[in-house]
Amino acid sequence: MFISFEGIDGSGKSTQARRLARTMADAGTETVLTREPGGSEGAEEIRRLLVEGRGERWSPETELLLFTAARRDHVERLIHPALARGASVITDRFADSSRVYQGLVRADLRQLVEELHRLTIGIEPARTFLIDLDPEIALARGQARGGVEDRFETLGLDFQRRLRDGFRALAAEFPARFRVIDGSGSEDEVAARVRATLA
Amino acid sequence: MFISFEGIDGSGKSTQARRLARTMADAGTETVLTREPGGSEGAEEIRRLLVEGRGERWSPETELLLFTAARRDHVERLIHPALARGASVITDRFADSSRVYQGLVRADLRQLVEELHRLTIGIEPARTFLIDLDPEIALARGQARGGVEDRFETLGLDFQRRLRDGFRALAAEFPARFRVIDGSGSEDEVAARVRATLA
Ligand SMILES: Nc1ncnc2c1ncn2[C@@H]1O[C@H](COP(=O)(O)OP(=O)(O)O)[C@@H](O)[C@H]1O
Ligand SMILES: Nc1ncnc2c1ncn2[C@@H]1O[C@H](COP(=O)(O)OP(=O)(O)O)[C@@H](O)[C@H]1O
Ligand SMILES: [Mg+2]
Ligand SMILES: [Mg+2]
Repeated sequence: MFISFEGIDGSGKSTQARRLARTMADAGTETVLTREPGGSEGAEEIRRLLVEGRGERWSPETELLLFTAARRDHVERLIHPALARGASVITDRFADSSRVYQGLVRADLRQLVEELHRLTIGIEPARTFLIDLDPEIALARGQARGGVEDRFETLGLDFQRRLRDGFRALAAEFPARFRVIDGSGSEDEVAARVRATLA
Repeated sequence: MFISFEGIDGSGKSTQARRLARTMADAGTETVLTREPGGSEGAEEIRRLLVEGRGERWSPETELLLFTAARRDHVERLIHPALARGASVITDRFADSSRVYQGLVRADLRQLVEELHRLTIGIEPARTFLIDLDPEIALARGQARGGVEDRFETLGLDFQRRLRDGFRALAAEFPARFRVIDGSGSEDEVAARVRATLA
């Protein structure tokens, strides 16, 4: 079983990915929890190129090629081997994040994301949980606990609103794979929604 | 005018690219001399990821994505701007090196090189000089002057023979763009052949 979590910054992806991994491991399934960008040694090194330096350092196309190279490494070094030995894999973000983020950077990049994915990645999760949350709640949670304000300050609340719309549109585009989870309420409440939807 | 030099290790590409750049600059043409992998700041950083570390570090596909990201950066930061202001660009290796090297690594990768090129690079040189030379002569030159033995030792003389055949086959595939230059004889003799072919 290959599962991904997607959503805006601070929506609770990492929290819920971790919780589901624990639940599945407790139930006796070997479960590998991973994340993007990064997730394998090579992908982490490529990620370092992406996050260091000035914002204008890479064009959107070069950035997308680097993200794709990192994802390819992640898939072939970690995800594929785990699935091949019968383990489940839960990833905190996967290709849908590229589809939505790059698509917001420039509409025509969405097509390039799809073509590069088809050529070099191929696989999709069997199930994708979109943790759907109002960006203002996500921001307030971040302010209460610390950690996500940076992304909100860099990208802006309005950008997070457009991201949320982008993720919802993508979920509507691939209804068989996506499940939209209401991300409001306590961690326990959201985790229960994820479990109920998976069952 | 966008010109590339291709050929096996030690065939004289760098020497001839440099000489042609000097000849064109002397004739009053603004000429930018560059090389791959690398050629721009970002491409050099990606190149560092490619050359450092163990040989098995990247799969052929990830390596190709990284080469393509580096080439995209090189094209958009250096080659395109130079051509746009009316300068000529001479590059020591370009996409044909990927076509031949990756194609030798695994035949089906040649198709992936083409698709990635079409999607993210697009441009081809107006003229490509294949400096064609017997690998044994290239090796002997390198032994005389130092510098290329490493590649010969790593890859082997037989691999260089297959590379030579690969480059010649590619030149036959794209006869309008390629000119095959006999790389034997003195530097001056080869440079004269290049100049005569360009005129
Ligand atoms: N249901 C929840 N209620 C309150 N705070 C939460 C909830 N889920 C996560 N958090 C907190 O909100 C912040 C962002 O959650 P996180 O899982 O890191 O989101 P993401 O990975 O989507 O950016 C963290 O500080 C986390 O502890
Ligand atoms: N025509 C030539 N005759 C003899 N030596 C040459 C000639 N052209 C180049 N060399 C020498 O051979 C070596 C390899 O040449 P170089 O231009 O670096 O090849 P490449 O860039 O194709 O690997 C260098 O030491 C160079 O000085
Ligand atoms: Mg997170
Ligand atoms: Mg050289």
